[in-house]
Amino acid sequence: MSEDLDMETIGHFIQGQVQNSGTRYQTVFNPSTGAAHKQVALADHDTVDQAIAAATAAFPAWRDTPVIKRVRIMFKFKQLLEEHADKICELIGQEHGKISHDAMGELQRGIENVEYACAATEFLKGEFSKNVGPHIDSWSEFQPLGVVAGITPFNFPVMVPLWMFPMALVCGNCFILKPSERDPSSTLYIAQLLQQAGLPDGVFALVNGDKEAVDYLLHDPRIQAISFVGSTPIAEYIYQTATAAGKRCQALGGAKNHAIIMPDADLDNVVSSLLGAAFGSSGERCMALSVAVAVGDEIADQVIEKLQAEMQKLRYGAYHDADNDFGPVITQAHKDKVLGYIDSAEQQGAKIVVDGRQAQVAGFEAGFFVGPTLIDAVTAEMHSYRAEIFGPVLQIIRVDSMQDAMQLIDAHEYGNGTCIYTRDGEAARYFSTHIQVGMVGINIPLPVPVAYHSFGGWKRSLFGDLSAYGPDGARFYTRRKTITQRWPSANLRESKQFSMPTLN
Amino acid sequence: MSEDLDMETIGHFIQGQVQNSGTRYQTVFNPSTGAAHKQVALADHDTVDQAIAAATAAFPAWRDTPVIKRVRIMFKFKQLLEEHADKICELIGQEHGKISHDAMGELQRGIENVEYACAATEFLKGEFSKNVGPHIDSWSEFQPLGVVAGITPFNFPVMVPLWMFPMALVCGNCFILKPSERDPSSTLYIAQLLQQAGLPDGVFALVNGDKEAVDYLLHDPRIQAISFVGSTPIAEYIYQTATAAGKRCQALGGAKNHAIIMPDADLDNVVSSLLGAAFGSSGERCMALSVAVAVGDEIADQVIEKLQAEMQKLRYGAYHDADNDFGPVITQAHKDKVLGYIDSAEQQGAKIVVDGRQAQVAGFEAGFFVGPTLIDAVTAEMHSYRAEIFGPVLQIIRVDSMQDAMQLIDAHEYGNGTCIYTRDGEAARYFSTHIQVGMVGINIPLPVPVAYHSFGGWKRSLFGDLSAYGPDGARFYTRRKTITQRWPSANLRESKQFSMPTLN
Amino acid sequence: MSEDLDMETIGHFIQGQVQNSGTRYQTVFNPSTGAAHKQVALADHDTVDQAIAAATAAFPAWRDTPVIKRVRIMFKFKQLLEEHADKICELIGQEHGKISHDAMGELQRGIENVEYACAATEFLKGEFSKNVGPHIDSWSEFQPLGVVAGITPFNFPVMVPLWMFPMALVCGNCFILKPSERDPSSTLYIAQLLQQAGLPDGVFALVNGDKEAVDYLLHDPRIQAISFVGSTPIAEYIYQTATAAGKRCQALGGAKNHAIIMPDADLDNVVSSLLGAAFGSSGERCMALSVAVAVGDEIADQVIEKLQAEMQKLRYGAYHDADNDFGPVITQAHKDKVLGYIDSAEQQGAKIVVDGRQAQVAGFEAGFFVGPTLIDAVTAEMHSYRAEIFGPVLQIIRVDSMQDAMQLIDAHEYGNGTCIYTRDGEAARYFSTHIQVGMVGINIPLPVPVAYHSFGGWKRSLFGDLSAYGPDGARFYTRRKTITQRWPSANLRESKQFSMPTLN
Amino acid sequence: MSEDLDMETIGHFIQGQVQNSGTRYQTVFNPSTGAAHKQVALADHDTVDQAIAAATAAFPAWRDTPVIKRVRIMFKFKQLLEEHADKICELIGQEHGKISHDAMGELQRGIENVEYACAATEFLKGEFSKNVGPHIDSWSEFQPLGVVAGITPFNFPVMVPLWMFPMALVCGNCFILKPSERDPSSTLYIAQLLQQAGLPDGVFALVNGDKEAVDYLLHDPRIQAISFVGSTPIAEYIYQTATAAGKRCQALGGAKNHAIIMPDADLDNVVSSLLGAAFGSSGERCMALSVAVAVGDEIADQVIEKLQAEMQKLRYGAYHDADNDFGPVITQAHKDKVLGYIDSAEQQGAKIVVDGRQAQVAGFEAGFFVGPTLIDAVTAEMHSYRAEIFGPVLQIIRVDSMQDAMQLIDAHEYGNGTCIYTRDGEAARYFSTHIQVGMVGINIPLPVPVAYHSFGGWKRSLFGDLSAYGPDGARFYTRRKTITQRWPSANLRESKQFSMPTLN
Repeated sequence: MSEDLDMETIGHFIQGQVQNSGTRYQTVFNPSTGAAHKQVALADHDTVDQAIAAATAAFPAWRDTPVIKRVRIMFKFKQLLEEHADKICELIGQEHGKISHDAMGELQRGIENVEYACAATEFLKGEFSKNVGPHIDSWSEFQPLGVVAGITPFNFPVMVPLWMFPMALVCGNCFILKPSERDPSSTLYIAQLLQQAGLPDGVFALVNGDKEAVDYLLHDPRIQAISFVGSTPIAEYIYQTATAAGKRCQALGGAKNHAIIMPDADLDNVVSSLLGAAFGSSGERCMALSVAVAVGDEIADQVIEKLQAEMQKLRYGAYHDADNDFGPVITQAHKDKVLGYIDSAEQQGAKIVVDGRQAQVAGFEAGFFVGPTLIDAVTAEMHSYRAEIFGPVLQIIRVDSMQDAMQLIDAHEYGNGTCIYTRDGEAARYFSTHIQVGMVGINIPLPVPVAYHSFGGWKRSLFGDLSAYGPDGARFYTRRKTITQRWPSANLRESKQFSMPTLN
Repeated sequence: MSEDLDMETIGHFIQGQVQNSGTRYQTVFNPSTGAAHKQVALADHDTVDQAIAAATAAFPAWRDTPVIKRVRIMFKFKQLLEEHADKICELIGQEHGKISHDAMGELQRGIENVEYACAATEFLKGEFSKNVGPHIDSWSEFQPLGVVAGITPFNFPVMVPLWMFPMALVCGNCFILKPSERDPSSTLYIAQLLQQAGLPDGVFALVNGDKEAVDYLLHDPRIQAISFVGSTPIAEYIYQTATAAGKRCQALGGAKNHAIIMPDADLDNVVSSLLGAAFGSSGERCMALSVAVAVGDEIADQVIEKLQAEMQKLRYGAYHDADNDFGPVITQAHKDKVLGYIDSAEQQGAKIVVDGRQAQVAGFEAGFFVGPTLIDAVTAEMHSYRAEIFGPVLQIIRVDSMQDAMQLIDAHEYGNGTCIYTRDGEAARYFSTHIQVGMVGINIPLPVPVAYHSFGGWKRSLFGDLSAYGPDGARFYTRRKTITQRWPSANLRESKQFSMPTLN
Repeated sequence: MSEDLDMETIGHFIQGQVQNSGTRYQTVFNPSTGAAHKQVALADHDTVDQAIAAATAAFPAWRDTPVIKRVRIMFKFKQLLEEHADKICELIGQEHGKISHDAMGELQRGIENVEYACAATEFLKGEFSKNVGPHIDSWSEFQPLGVVAGITPFNFPVMVPLWMFPMALVCGNCFILKPSERDPSSTLYIAQLLQQAGLPDGVFALVNGDKEAVDYLLHDPRIQAISFVGSTPIAEYIYQTATAAGKRCQALGGAKNHAIIMPDADLDNVVSSLLGAAFGSSGERCMALSVAVAVGDEIADQVIEKLQAEMQKLRYGAYHDADNDFGPVITQAHKDKVLGYIDSAEQQGAKIVVDGRQAQVAGFEAGFFVGPTLIDAVTAEMHSYRAEIFGPVLQIIRVDSMQDAMQLIDAHEYGNGTCIYTRDGEAARYFSTHIQVGMVGINIPLPVPVAYHSFGGWKRSLFGDLSAYGPDGARFYTRRKTITQRWPSANLRESKQFSMPTLN
Repeated sequence: MSEDLDMETIGHFIQGQVQNSGTRYQTVFNPSTGAAHKQVALADHDTVDQAIAAATAAFPAWRDTPVIKRVRIMFKFKQLLEEHADKICELIGQEHGKISHDAMGELQRGIENVEYACAATEFLKGEFSKNVGPHIDSWSEFQPLGVVAGITPFNFPVMVPLWMFPMALVCGNCFILKPSERDPSSTLYIAQLLQQAGLPDGVFALVNGDKEAVDYLLHDPRIQAISFVGSTPIAEYIYQTATAAGKRCQALGGAKNHAIIMPDADLDNVVSSLLGAAFGSSGERCMALSVAVAVGDEIADQVIEKLQAEMQKLRYGAYHDADNDFGPVITQAHKDKVLGYIDSAEQQGAKIVVDGRQAQVAGFEAGFFVGPTLIDAVTAEMHSYRAEIFGPVLQIIRVDSMQDAMQLIDAHEYGNGTCIYTRDGEAARYFSTHIQVGMVGINIPLPVPVAYHSFGGWKRSLFGDLSAYGPDGARFYTRRKTITQRWPSANLRESKQFSMPTLN
């Protein structure tokens, strides 16, 4: 669409200025009301180019800025994020629909990445070796890449960007962020806080846009690396395009996260933690726990009974009511897709134990709500099992043994997160050692690694060598340089050497 | 060609057996005599498949073998490599042409990688964090990838494979090696020593072959990662194909390594060390020092004068004469190519100061010899400057300042190694900090990092995120898994949680 | 003395309360005016006991608090230190005498330690090893020691405490600080900010006192570790007493820091940086550069000439005038001692080139001022050379060679810091490699390591195994625990084992 | 005693020569037969001085030897230890009495430390920081201490020395070993293998001796550090004396290692593993499991019943019969002491379930044998519980809860090793987190850390800051040096600076 002058427009942030240089626009909805809310400018080539040019110009001075000075901007940024937490959560709520306590949780996990970035003086240390040969020293330095870009999804408009740019920036890179065009206001807001924290203009830019902007970033030779979080087909496209263009890339895709419930599990804990992990944020999390694999019918029946009872008490509704447990999904189209998965499960023989398809919220009839849904008797062949639903839908699969449960999980194309409920040390260790999944919880249904570890799925959940944020983030955003040094001495005369030199 | 039954055939090494299952063969020459020497079997699909199948079958037991047991095979392997050093060097000499002292240098650098692999208990340690939340611990494990492959070049038939498989194996992977088909005997020989060291059959296989075998490895879904060393066009092809197929890949390509000679350099050191770095191994090294950038005409004239004098004393000839400084190049075709570069330089206006084009070695008239060649007045536009010559040719470029020298180096498409000759601390630090090259020498013309650091060029000299061998090798051959663990307690009852959990 | 009710009394800080439970008092002077200014309560046994008891009670909850929560108090503490910087510097100035810009430098270096403490999630990670034997894992944890104490000197009433307690606290310890009784107000003030930052009461206490309090801390079995900074005789006493009582101890003592001036040094840099390093803070720094060793008379004469000229321009006076370069020394007694060293040098044959003994500051005639003093022709036998003067006195020693200069430095009992001025890479590397001094500067006269490295002298400048702050600080304030774990399996039956088990 | 010329004399090993310069001698027994077997020369001052002088002279060249060259001697040493394993075990057996399979276990654990020392290129890396300030770099180096000494106990004449000197040597130190005078032959033998591995003469010396030699080592100023393993009273003496003399010291003392047997423990595993852990090596191990704490009478009764049955099958006897499970204790005096502890337990009311006091081995009637002994109803007040028995005696304590068991363990003066038998994840985690013991096993009765972790008890089991071997070993045997470097530039002119410089 073209610009609607009566509607608030969300612009780009380039060279320290919010600007709106686009000619194409996209509507931003309030999912709680279903109303068209704002419009976002979609960057064309010129806008993206302007951001890259500014970053390229800012890079040399930023690269040579002492690490501690870069770090101190992050100290200040953390402080500003905390001071403006309410505003950030309100913006998230308006455009994403998540309830304020959930938005606060998202922000908090994001801030943890800023906190970790404050440790850059520690994690950027290179390795120094004395006397690798007579009078020869050698060391490594981890130098920034240059201008790098991040492309982030709608479901965490603040947290996922914060996985990326604080680490990239403290490592000495300049950063171009292309956030989701569905809920860009909170992202734009924190970009402005970053400037307020003292980041020099040009070092960071935010461009809103769609595939056109993304493709420009993927092909521009000044961009050294791409970080992406989204769905697997797009992740694969991003990864292949970026690497073919000679860029470093890490592209995080979809997930289907299973919990194994062992017969010795503490059922109250299981049910209580599953509710949050399955339905929190309407299931729109790449770490949402969407499949519970019960080992034995007895435990399955018990869990379902308890879940059913607890699910009656769940409250969903508009983002601004803090008593709600979760809010709407992101768009009407997405709501239709989620309902379609539930329909297909039913058609393929699964049993809809709790049905959220007829969800209605009084006063918010046009909101994109889906009620909490529990499906039993799911099998590995069902469409609803193969796909990532991204809705408040928990499916139960019944198996006879832990071994069967593990085979099921390993057979799925995704390998992001998984969890086992047990109190048995051996079961937990066997599971975590052998399961083909990158992030494993033991009695923890959402095993998102803390910011000082790294986030990465296996199989088709991550394309690239290095995980996101944490120690791997530092490695991703730097290039190793190795220096080998000998100082000539009057007493040190070498004979010429034609053999492969061995240094020692 | 098809098999010639009168000629010794070099086979594959699969499941602990040397075998020759191929139907296509390629001649292996003795470059010192020019004689067709042996033939090497070229693997077809079945042979490669057999190697991959064996490795896939061997993987689960190998992965679960305690690290120290894997490491002890490397301790034994080192011992066997040392005991059979003469045999290995003889095989290198016959097929590659390098002089025994140079082959010994190659082997020694290779053994250093085996030595580093013996430190796997140290470098495979994961990170453990206590109390990432109340009663919650989290840690990372670096698990092996599965079956991985290496594709290695003719110029270091022993060292480059040893950059790869010792690290891959101690990390718990199985390994398929596709060495160069030009000089495969020494590689096959060390594969047999590896078995003798106690490696279980199937864990390692060597398949000889050409593009057909390579493409099979690039596309087979059981192969998790590819390490490659060779020329840039092939490296780029390998990287794009492997990553598009969802594999991890590191592909090392070509180089054009410059030394800056500063006015305060110690000239005797410069000349002495340049001779070895430029002409050693006939310049067939990706770290060969092939361009000397003299800062100022005065130093240029002095260096040329001294080089000219020293080059008269250089001896080249057949591999078995240890008095030779260097041997032949690898093939007649390669010799022709090297001579072509010298011709073109001459045609484009450079000055051939010492001319190696008419090289003749008495008794070895059919050997592929090129004499040491020194070219002055080279410019950045010349074909001989843009390309990697891979022959005993040293080119001189004259510039007016260190800044000009650095711009020249940064403008070249390759960024493997570089060096500065100076005794000035500031010049050295400025150079090593800012030059866009991955491996930097200060008064060290061949700054190949020691085995406990990592090898990696910048720009189009390396495709991939992680460098070869050393700490980066360990990271390349493992996949991060993060476990987050809480044990249920009777006293620990959670309320259900719908917000993004923050753990603390 | 006993309490003077007309004078402001500086109390202790225990359980979150400032209190004055003492019966003995000591006067605190304003060194700029020479006036008795305040009095400080000296803790008796009961007061110290109360602090230890509170800390002991607070320990279990603090130890089990997730690291990130401890860290966040440091984030807040940094913010408060910055917000109240002017007040802190004013308090330092009143009681210590240092000029505001110098106090700000001290505070800034202190804050850097708080910043590093914010990286505790990173530096407290333990090492995790998978499969140290079949199905056996092993990892290390760095657990806090319990209640630990710090005893700090007058010359950095804010910075040196900040070397200690932020690290100790984030590691999970409780901390008792006994600051210098000469200038305790700024230290007390930051203790209150720490509470404001959210530290639970009891976790930290400050007790003012003298030897009585120190001895109580040294002998109380509840104190697990002692950190000390002061003079060498006291450091040695502290170390021997604490270790004999079974405590961990690091005790930093005196220094005599030499700079070697090589003939190729950049003289303007040398002179400019020597002025600050020798006379800044009136030389009352353990890293003060108090001896310049000139290699050759030519460079000696030039340096002296330039220093003499520059020293005329130096301004010293009361702490509140920011135009002053430095202020008074700490007490009249200390002033007398400094003057005594100058007298003795003169008597032993040295040449007083610039004489600061008659220093007078208009309007501050009773202040403890010593003017900048330069002494030539000093020899290793002189009393003024053997001792740490801790005043604004720079001594010149002339030697014939770098080797002589290094022997001189190595022969001194202290080995805290040292520096070389040169632009020669080899000289710098030879010096830093071989000199028996813990902190080495290359063209940096005050080589105080940044907060993410560690501070530690050699020889009699440090008693203990681990240096202060930085990575060593973390190690000092934690105790290693190693866990080895195997889970029993129905399939895993061991035969009894009588041999020393080897795990693999 | 003075030398008996009819008896084989065990000498010292200094400057690459076995020598016997002493005037005092001590008898070495064969504990299996009780016969006086050999005599060992006890070093006087001159002998110790000669060893120190040789080491001091050898130090500069050894310190400057590239790490990888030092490491290669360890590679060779490992090979020689393996080749001569039978000989080493025979020597251990003759003088210590342990059965060949146990001696082989000891040797193997020792070799693992040599293997870890081979990773020195990795663990000696310093930390390099770029741009700690504008154009300023800083890094740390871990330099060797100089000449260091080790004093080792009789119970592991090969393993404990191998905990120390391989690490000390690869770090660049020279080493003086004072092994136990009770069984010095195997130690002397491996010293000779070390020389054969290529260690330069003087770098390592072995001096046999008693308190006289020890005291000389403790006081000689040329000795920089002391590592000790033995009993707590001696450890404390060593630690206090060495630290008072300004040396670095780590002194490992006694132990009383408890296993908690939880009601859910796998009893067959418990019994099988307890037998080896309690009676292996006759209980003469500082990690011997000497107290089993049963939680509940039911499990206590079951364990005792099963232990009783299994203990009947245990075989003990002379070292050369590999069918024996364990051998004699070290001396007649020690046997008497062990029997005394059993007597006292009986007198204090404990119940001797299995009584080993009347042990007799046919054909070896004079051997120092004690049979396996099981004591029930032990209480915390009994003498046999407070002391380290160091004999084949297992005591049972009954408690009502895990909490009681943990309080018991924490109340003991020693805190070396401990273990819990359970399959419950929470119990294991709670135990390992909170118990005041340095080395914790989960279903592992002898949780000796592997060589790439570090060995260290808590409380009065270790005096010093750093644990033995592994990463802590490297830190113990090196001294941190921090270099801060800036190169002068014509463009870089500083204004003089009087404030505390902040570098950034």
